[in-house]
Amino acid sequence: MIPFNKPYLTGKETLYIEDAVKSGKISGNGKYTKLCQDYFQSRYNFKKCLLTTSCTDALEMCAILLNIEPGDEVIIPSYTFVSTALAFVRQGAKIVFADSRADHPGIDENKIEELITNKTKLIIPVHYAGVACDMDKIMAIAGKYNLFVVEDAAQAIDSFYTGADGVKRALGSIGHLSAFSFHETKNIISGEGGMLCINDERFVKRSEIIWEKGTNRAEFFRGEVNKYGWVDTGSSFLPSEIIAAFLWAQIENLDDIQKKRKEIWEQYYNLLKPAELSNNFKLSEIPDYATNNAHMNYLVCNTLEYRADLINRLKSEGILAVFHYLALHKSEFYKEKHDGRELPECDRYADCLLRLPMYYELSKAEMEQIVSVIFEIK
Amino acid sequence: MIPFNKPYLTGKETLYIEDAVKSGKISGNGKYTKLCQDYFQSRYNFKKCLLTTSCTDALEMCAILLNIEPGDEVIIPSYTFVSTALAFVRQGAKIVFADSRADHPGIDENKIEELITNKTKLIIPVHYAGVACDMDKIMAIAGKYNLFVVEDAAQAIDSFYTGADGVKRALGSIGHLSAFSFHETKNIISGEGGMLCINDERFVKRSEIIWEKGTNRAEFFRGEVNKYGWVDTGSSFLPSEIIAAFLWAQIENLDDIQKKRKEIWEQYYNLLKPAELSNNFKLSEIPDYATNNAHMNYLVCNTLEYRADLINRLKSEGILAVFHYLALHKSEFYKEKHDGRELPECDRYADCLLRLPMYYELSKAEMEQIVSVIFEIK
Repeated sequence: MIPFNKPYLTGKETLYIEDAVKSGKISGNGKYTKLCQDYFQSRYNFKKCLLTTSCTDALEMCAILLNIEPGDEVIIPSYTFVSTALAFVRQGAKIVFADSRADHPGIDENKIEELITNKTKLIIPVHYAGVACDMDKIMAIAGKYNLFVVEDAAQAIDSFYTGADGVKRALGSIGHLSAFSFHETKNIISGEGGMLCINDERFVKRSEIIWEKGTNRAEFFRGEVNKYGWVDTGSSFLPSEIIAAFLWAQIENLDDIQKKRKEIWEQYYNLLKPAELSNNFKLSEIPDYATNNAHMNYLVCNTLEYRADLINRLKSEGILAVFHYLALHKSEFYKEKHDGRELPECDRYADCLLRLPMYYELSKAEMEQIVSVIFEIK
Repeated sequence: MIPFNKPYLTGKETLYIEDAVKSGKISGNGKYTKLCQDYFQSRYNFKKCLLTTSCTDALEMCAILLNIEPGDEVIIPSYTFVSTALAFVRQGAKIVFADSRADHPGIDENKIEELITNKTKLIIPVHYAGVACDMDKIMAIAGKYNLFVVEDAAQAIDSFYTGADGVKRALGSIGHLSAFSFHETKNIISGEGGMLCINDERFVKRSEIIWEKGTNRAEFFRGEVNKYGWVDTGSSFLPSEIIAAFLWAQIENLDDIQKKRKEIWEQYYNLLKPAELSNNFKLSEIPDYATNNAHMNYLVCNTLEYRADLINRLKSEGILAVFHYLALHKSEFYKEKHDGRELPECDRYADCLLRLPMYYELSKAEMEQIVSVIFEIK
């Protein structure tokens, strides 16, 4: 059996969890939370990071920080995970779905401007497979119309974008706010888990309050106020130190994990490249301005039928390959609220994109086995 | 140093976490989540349980399940944690604060009815210190006015209520819905963590959907639908299997933990009882219809000054005793929205209640040390 994903344990996770427990502090915002946050801030040049219980929760914090209200419009690619939309729907937003690029499942930057109205409040580019959207274009549109940008960087840890100024910036550090995921399928993991990153100073102070159930508890513990109380809306967005301790063990091995994943990705790609000649599918491509964080290895099949056939053939060999998102604009929950525009590229990725097994411990032999099945289908 | 709280580790937490990791499944809704949920359902006669990342999140699920909308009124004691109110404020509810009982910080059941209007949607009794509110009275009022009841059972695991029918029911199993906390300060813990319990069949199916980001993923994995998609609102309310594995180790030792805590609580109480003669404070009392789950040991001081003095005297001996809630109706966030009614009992508990150190590993010698300081103040 070759699973689609296999969580990788670096070896120190339970050691750090025990350390957290022994310190007498396993609720949120303790030593390991601070270690993780400081690390990300410093390594990726985020102004402020806050660990959250999920990427969904980080996106909800964005919706609260941006004061999203009923009637506000949010531009989101339809080919994305439910949470990208849901977090803003909970605040009452109307979702305006954009199509994907022809060459990549990410939002089509050239089709954003036509969706903007005087109700539009923000744009959410999703860095699909950890590959950057064209952030220069998106930030320019946002600047022109005075919109906010929230990067959905769920899959984009340790990935970068190089803009026209030649500066290589970490994904998640470019928009006003961004959200990461540490779900077990990601490069570094904590089971469930996420992170909000704040790059705009205006949101820093309030973010801590919203994170801690609308209280000024963080200020209190820093001695900035005499007592702490209920001062704002919010929720319990912070994860346990158990989760942060687990994540810290992963972070300590981030360079090793990334090196290994990139090696696997390259080998895989080179094995798959000749099979592309069958014209049954296309491999993913990385634009010049983007890096590859080796999060995902996917094919875009030519037809839904070929994909179904391939999934079944792989499955019969004990190999689990899986499709990805359904089009949100066609979902049971949102189809009546969608304005009816066709989003053909989104539909194509929903029908034809296939993700192959991809994880730290995937061996060369396993890759060869997977690729050999793909070669068998003419 | 005697801390206020010390998380207790049963010894198997990291073992089960390792097992979860080795199984290749550390995201939510896996083996340990099911073990925990099944255990609680069966032991306490809840219709359905769902672990959550916090008690706040469980309360938010209640607000969503009950379709709370702007304008809806929710009756809550003012002497409670921010989350009791906040989870419903996020859905747009207006909070109507009730006062506490003279003999207990829980909601004054006799003052609820006068707060009901045609906008009132639900009542939230908070079982303070794990001691039951008078649920017969509350359920009767709810029945009379067709209101929902959500039990805030954050502190109330393994505590019971015996009504007029003579049946002893677990707290959390009486209202339509209830919410528990496994925060590190609770009897059994997972750092941060919580649980939603559903006792009304009408909410069972939708609860799973809301829990899993508004998707029918649970039905999909049970083979009830062909594919899963976005069908409702919701969020990522489910915790990692890392958290559930930790909690499972605690659950396995629940009887031992409860036995030990009750012993400590009794010893403590007996040591403190003679000091009550000073007339500086009163010990807590357990009504006949309620059990004591030994969650908390608190004093209600006669004056704010005595409490401040006692906190300082204990602190100078290295003992951490802490006050509890501030009155929510006087909070910066809600005071302008509150209708101006005075809530004198709530104010008194905010000013005068003091929680003494209380945890599994608290020794007799430490208790004696704490009590001796209390005896010194005349």
